Amino acid sequence: MDSIQKLTELFKQFPGIGPRQAKRFVYFLLAQKNGYAGELSNLIVELKKEIYCCESCFRFFPKDKGESKICPICRSDSRDKNILMIISRDVDFENIERTKSFNGYYFILGGVVPILEENPAHKIRQKELLDTIAAKTKGGVLKEIILALDANPDGENTREYVTRLLGPLSIQYGFKISTLGRGLSTGAELEYSDPDTLRSALQSRK
Amino acid sequence: MDSIQKLTELFKQFPGIGPRQAKRFVYFLLAQKNGYAGELSNLIVELKKEIYCCESCFRFFPKDKGESKICPICRSDSRDKNILMIISRDVDFENIERTKSFNGYYFILGGVVPILEENPAHKIRQKELLDTIAAKTKGGVLKEIILALDANPDGENTREYVTRLLGPLSIQYGFKISTLGRGLSTGAELEYSDPDTLRSALQSRK
Amino acid sequence: MDSIQKLTELFKQFPGIGPRQAKRFVYFLLAQKNGYAGELSNLIVELKKEIYCCESCFRFFPKDKGESKICPICRSDSRDKNILMIISRDVDFENIERTKSFNGYYFILGGVVPILEENPAHKIRQKELLDTIAAKTKGGVLKEIILALDANPDGENTREYVTRLLGPLSIQYGFKISTLGRGLSTGAELEYSDPDTLRSALQSRK
Amino acid sequence: MDSIQKLTELFKQFPGIGPRQAKRFVYFLLAQKNGYAGELSNLIVELKKEIYCCESCFRFFPKDKGESKICPICRSDSRDKNILMIISRDVDFENIERTKSFNGYYFILGGVVPILEENPAHKIRQKELLDTIAAKTKGGVLKEIILALDANPDGENTREYVTRLLGPLSIQYGFKISTLGRGLSTGAELEYSDPDTLRSALQSRK
Repeated sequence: MDSIQKLTELFKQFPGIGPRQAKRFVYFLLAQKNGYAGELSNLIVELKKEIYCCESCFRFFPKDKGESKICPICRSDSRDKNILMIISRDVDFENIERTKSFNGYYFILGGVVPILEENPAHKIRQKELLDTIAAKTKGGVLKEIILALDANPDGENTREYVTRLLGPLSIQYGFKISTLGRGLSTGAELEYSDPDTLRSALQSRK
Repeated sequence: MDSIQKLTELFKQFPGIGPRQAKRFVYFLLAQKNGYAGELSNLIVELKKEIYCCESCFRFFPKDKGESKICPICRSDSRDKNILMIISRDVDFENIERTKSFNGYYFILGGVVPILEENPAHKIRQKELLDTIAAKTKGGVLKEIILALDANPDGENTREYVTRLLGPLSIQYGFKISTLGRGLSTGAELEYSDPDTLRSALQSRK
Repeated sequence: MDSIQKLTELFKQFPGIGPRQAKRFVYFLLAQKNGYAGELSNLIVELKKEIYCCESCFRFFPKDKGESKICPICRSDSRDKNILMIISRDVDFENIERTKSFNGYYFILGGVVPILEENPAHKIRQKELLDTIAAKTKGGVLKEIILALDANPDGENTREYVTRLLGPLSIQYGFKISTLGRGLSTGAELEYSDPDTLRSALQSRK
Repeated sequence: MDSIQKLTELFKQFPGIGPRQAKRFVYFLLAQKNGYAGELSNLIVELKKEIYCCESCFRFFPKDKGESKICPICRSDSRDKNILMIISRDVDFENIERTKSFNGYYFILGGVVPILEENPAHKIRQKELLDTIAAKTKGGVLKEIILALDANPDGENTREYVTRLLGPLSIQYGFKISTLGRGLSTGAELEYSDPDTLRSALQSRK
């Protein structure tokens, strides 16, 4: 395999990239001035040095002077200690922050539990989640865990798995487990909405 | 214009049908055995004779022996007289009924009020709506009107228009005006959800 | 079944129409003024009276004063008697005429022979095609038959079937059988073109 | 800007990649084991060292032991010296080779001349093309130049521009300029084909 083929193989592993586009990426790099490839190569190497994975919420964040292994949100004292939101991925975190409607803490599962998965504990940060919750319940202030997961089959399955996982803790420490409300998404039309969505929209009318 | 062209013009007015598909409909009819076109032609003529538009909710319904001008749902005594749901079209009615989660009465607006529409009263059954509400408030049992409209710009505009229209009556007769809950539709992923939808989903979590 | 359901069933048989759109057609008709449904109903009945199927090319055409069962193109003396183009459907005829690049005669197969079809003779106008060719070869002027069929699997299969069917006649009467040229369609990009298309485009370069 | 943002900016320049997918690439890299990012980073740097741009056809090719700056195809003696094919990009080269139907030489323009482009000479390898043709005509064997360009507006415009550019040389040295044949691409249906495509398909029938 020559370098074009080797690099194409690596780009093929990028999310959503097929062999044709992977090859186009390589030719794109070849056609750029030398500076671009050098900068890209450097940034990829630097990335893991500059970005830490928070030891509390497991979110990726740029390290700061203090070199704390805890991200600024988890360190913050001004957020609502009563609520922890569990999400699948870092991009979900960004989308939730953009709403400016949530002021609690986060935990990033790092994935979903696909339907029929035989080893769910290996698809998400299960041990880390239990540790984080244990630490948060010590202070006795955790009152709610929001499962903010996709409204699709894998998201549903993950919600069910995590709900079962946290059930005993929820009783022991007295926090409630909630899920994001279902209803009409922006742009949804009644004619093309499924009965589940309409039923939720009816129940949560206001 | 020959018959092919004339019929193509009529089919072009069908919802969602362009000139090419309209023409295909005509050739499809030409290629069918004679019985099909005859049956289709008869049914189209019979349709308006067999189907009434309910004088209370303005829904289309098949006439029955009694030849009542009021549809079975509006005649029913077993439904919840406290709630009236306002919807745009007959297909929305079918979708809501399919949820088996609504037991009140309906009113079909017959359309939407598009944004920047100069003559909203002509786009929907405004007078009929006011008459129906007047009749329902006489008994004093109307407690809630649900505006079940599309979560898109035209639906939003219709909701605002009807809310303003019914505002005074709502105060006078003491019924509340509600709208379908917003949130994650079935299949929605957090990564591709807009801030409005996420905000609603957060607020209506449970 | 009430009239709405019966008519929905008929519309569902229209090409490319599913149950949802069929139902919308019915509600569309119900919402129109009476004149529309009447006109539509009449035109559908009149269609088969006003439109003949040409006894030579089997194309649908509006009948004229003379009430000839032969269409104007087949009656025309100014077209090229040497060439007969075989096409699948009436819409293909319209598209070819629009090119203003063909001046021969047509024959409408009335369908395609799908792959693995066990009874090909029933899917196309096989007997009528043989009769038409027999009539045209009597004058001894038929020099070429163009098979103008879709460049997809069903079209290919039809081409192979008709080529085999006409093979003996082609030798007996000395006409050649040709097919439409393959190559880059308008808008095609090399990067997304399959090897067959590129090979044809190379061979037919000019 | 932190490393996540900087790398997102670079990935946004990849062909066909928007801000959302660029961000996903970064999180994907963060989530991989260290080896992956290191290997990717190395390969990107090595790419330009391992891959040469051929000084004759300007195609990218993996350097071999001899470290020749001329690619194996341009060095080959067994190819047809009479024909030169001009293409826009390296991926087009791969697609043409896959047809196993072309045995001449190539020249990679490195781009297209967009419609209304004010400075066409800067969008393609114009000088290099003229040099390569000059070298090839010295031996007196160049008989045909095939312009193998996309059948879309930019491809058409590039074809016209290069045809004008090469016109005088074509007369002086007696080579002809050809273009890829137009016709039905694989999968094309007559009903959805434009008149230009059908006209070409008719003319190139066989």
